[in-house]
Amino acid sequence: MSTALLTDHYELTMLQAALASGAAHRRAVFEVFARRLPAGRRYGMVAGTERILDAIQNFQFGDQELEFLRDVIDRPTHDFLAGFRFSGDIYGYREGETYYPGSPILVVEGRFAEAVLLETIVLSILNHDCAIASAAARMVHAAGDRPIIEMGTRRTHERSAVAAARAAYLCGFGSTSNLMAGLEYGIPTAGTAAHAFTLLHDSEEAAFQAQLASLGAGTTLLVDTYDVAKAVQTAVELAGPALGAVRIDSGDLATAAIEVRRLLDDLGARQTRIVVTSDLDEFAIAALAVAPVDGYGVGTCLVTGSGAPTANLVYKLVTREDAAGRLSPVAKKSVGKPSRGGRKWAYRALRDGTATAEIITRAPAEDVGRPLLAPLVRDGEIIGRESLAAARARARASMSELPPIAHSLSPGDPAIPTIFNWSWETGA
Amino acid sequence: MSTALLTDHYELTMLQAALASGAAHRRAVFEVFARRLPAGRRYGMVAGTERILDAIQNFQFGDQELEFLRDVIDRPTHDFLAGFRFSGDIYGYREGETYYPGSPILVVEGRFAEAVLLETIVLSILNHDCAIASAAARMVHAAGDRPIIEMGTRRTHERSAVAAARAAYLCGFGSTSNLMAGLEYGIPTAGTAAHAFTLLHDSEEAAFQAQLASLGAGTTLLVDTYDVAKAVQTAVELAGPALGAVRIDSGDLATAAIEVRRLLDDLGARQTRIVVTSDLDEFAIAALAVAPVDGYGVGTCLVTGSGAPTANLVYKLVTREDAAGRLSPVAKKSVGKPSRGGRKWAYRALRDGTATAEIITRAPAEDVGRPLLAPLVRDGEIIGRESLAAARARARASMSELPPIAHSLSPGDPAIPTIFNWSWETGA
Repeated sequence: MSTALLTDHYELTMLQAALASGAAHRRAVFEVFARRLPAGRRYGMVAGTERILDAIQNFQFGDQELEFLRDVIDRPTHDFLAGFRFSGDIYGYREGETYYPGSPILVVEGRFAEAVLLETIVLSILNHDCAIASAAARMVHAAGDRPIIEMGTRRTHERSAVAAARAAYLCGFGSTSNLMAGLEYGIPTAGTAAHAFTLLHDSEEAAFQAQLASLGAGTTLLVDTYDVAKAVQTAVELAGPALGAVRIDSGDLATAAIEVRRLLDDLGARQTRIVVTSDLDEFAIAALAVAPVDGYGVGTCLVTGSGAPTANLVYKLVTREDAAGRLSPVAKKSVGKPSRGGRKWAYRALRDGTATAEIITRAPAEDVGRPLLAPLVRDGEIIGRESLAAARARARASMSELPPIAHSLSPGDPAIPTIFNWSWETGA
Repeated sequence: MSTALLTDHYELTMLQAALASGAAHRRAVFEVFARRLPAGRRYGMVAGTERILDAIQNFQFGDQELEFLRDVIDRPTHDFLAGFRFSGDIYGYREGETYYPGSPILVVEGRFAEAVLLETIVLSILNHDCAIASAAARMVHAAGDRPIIEMGTRRTHERSAVAAARAAYLCGFGSTSNLMAGLEYGIPTAGTAAHAFTLLHDSEEAAFQAQLASLGAGTTLLVDTYDVAKAVQTAVELAGPALGAVRIDSGDLATAAIEVRRLLDDLGARQTRIVVTSDLDEFAIAALAVAPVDGYGVGTCLVTGSGAPTANLVYKLVTREDAAGRLSPVAKKSVGKPSRGGRKWAYRALRDGTATAEIITRAPAEDVGRPLLAPLVRDGEIIGRESLAAARARARASMSELPPIAHSLSPGDPAIPTIFNWSWETGA
């Protein structure tokens, strides 16, 4: 499937006009960054880089795309696109790194013509995946050692759901309900039954019996279709103390969990776990920390970014070749939307293993901190692939190097400052 | 592309257990509805029905899907899925109808086994598309006769963006920046240039000249890269009074529009239009009603549902065959999440062409109002296709039949009450 038309019209009209003026062939550098984090957030989490590499691989204009574009662009542009492959370089933050205002998450270098064409697809992927990952990371931290199942598929677009499951798993969710995410990314999938299954049968007992017979005593029984206490009793009577788990999906979850735990223990089902679901977000998860809960299922709030459904990342031209062939920094002066010209490098400064600052420089620097920009594409060739497992391990490491304030759920400033250290420009 | 795995794991484990218990073959009716509208909203807008029909058409388990499911489900379930095609009936609200709490937007009738399998994909599509359409409708009303361009692609998942462009157009947006939406749905696409195009050239003048030379005087020039007043002057000097439009993307748009209008008029460019963009939502659009603006570009707020990124629709079993072979209503009793059992019919009551109530009955009724449930699928065969143009015309008609309070942007109750008229159950 070509990704080339998952693109804004104006990328192609800009290309057309720049091909005509000759400026299309100028070398250019675009950077992706966030002017600010969503209100009150302490850090952002990078996700989507690997999906960008997939998208670039499929970014070509085939017969169908070219036929459609006949009415959009002129003949020279059409001819240019017919053979188009991105041939530049891309550097980027690795998935699972945290980011802050101004962090140059992705740096795209090439001719203007090719770098401008990637703008829309790059932003779509990063704005979605970073938004989900940034919410997921907060939920994972709030859940502590308790596993979280991602189950938001039904609350978002059917393909966003797959990317959301991936972003959540990357940040430490244990599994997803989404089968396509299992097929495409090898993420563990999970799920047992809904209220409809209980209602389908002639009694709750008959439904539990059917589920246990088919899925085994290790299954999770949903106990809030009618009366929770009665359902728990029925569940343990039928399954015995080997019952895997019960799920509560309504009511005040803390109160319900305490009652169900007492009941399960009284019935001898001390190993049976309690899973809670029902519009959980990071705040609700944190509030349940003292309740006898063994796992969480999170849906709506995960796939909608828990109040911040887009990361609001932008893709800005920061350097380009001028008429004399020199690379020179550029920046617009629009009111309230300034940007910083010049190609940038980024480092994470640490003290005793704890992040202290995001250092942005205008030239490669030494001994400033961990370099954050990794080579992803060189001369059009993808060289930066890595496994989802590696990204997941990095997310865990990144979160553990954050200062404690980063994990506060109350609104506040970014956990570490972004320091634009232009002294590195001259090597000073 | 099979849509069968864009599905939650538990739909398949429920299927497995129900196949084993025999209950899978019971006749069942599921309904999609919203318990409530997003906070303060007066109405919801239906979109996504046509995409559901596409998804059902491709809902089959091929070799790749079946191979993946080997570890998820048992052998009999595997065999059942190998030949699966939905063979039931589906009724639904047409795209472009408004909806209210309790409106049965979609009714799926069939064997439990087949109706339960569609749950996730149906909800994903409707929850996304209705959320976008419901926001889009408010924006279109706020814009009045002024056209809106949908340009949110970069702020959402790359495939959600296509569906969002479709939903926006359905509700009255005039065009989209998304080329794939042009290819797949025939929606008019639009766009000219970004700040990068201006920055690429050695001067704003050179950039404008390049754009005008390639795209003609009818193009839209972006005038806020450096100094707006100077840019407008340059634009008219180069293009003459035939300049199509200027775009302002920053600052206080109302103030800027007034100044730019005066300047354009002074320069003799009285026909040149002013297009504004920059994080517009329905409130900002309404606030600009008195400003000399000729068109809006809306991005982020459209694709994120303007504060309500999901419609929170649910898919609930309301009727099923019991052990005796009788169809009987069912409903769970979960705390705070009650549902109403029984298959439903829906009508829009009108007085003098203005909607007065959403009437929900348990049997077909006469002379209650306009019937809202149209046959979409019969015995598995899709019979309810309609053009996007027809849906778009319906959206316009639906909005014009709403009482004036429906268009208030201040938070409030649904514009018309939902009346559950069970007296129709017995034909009384």
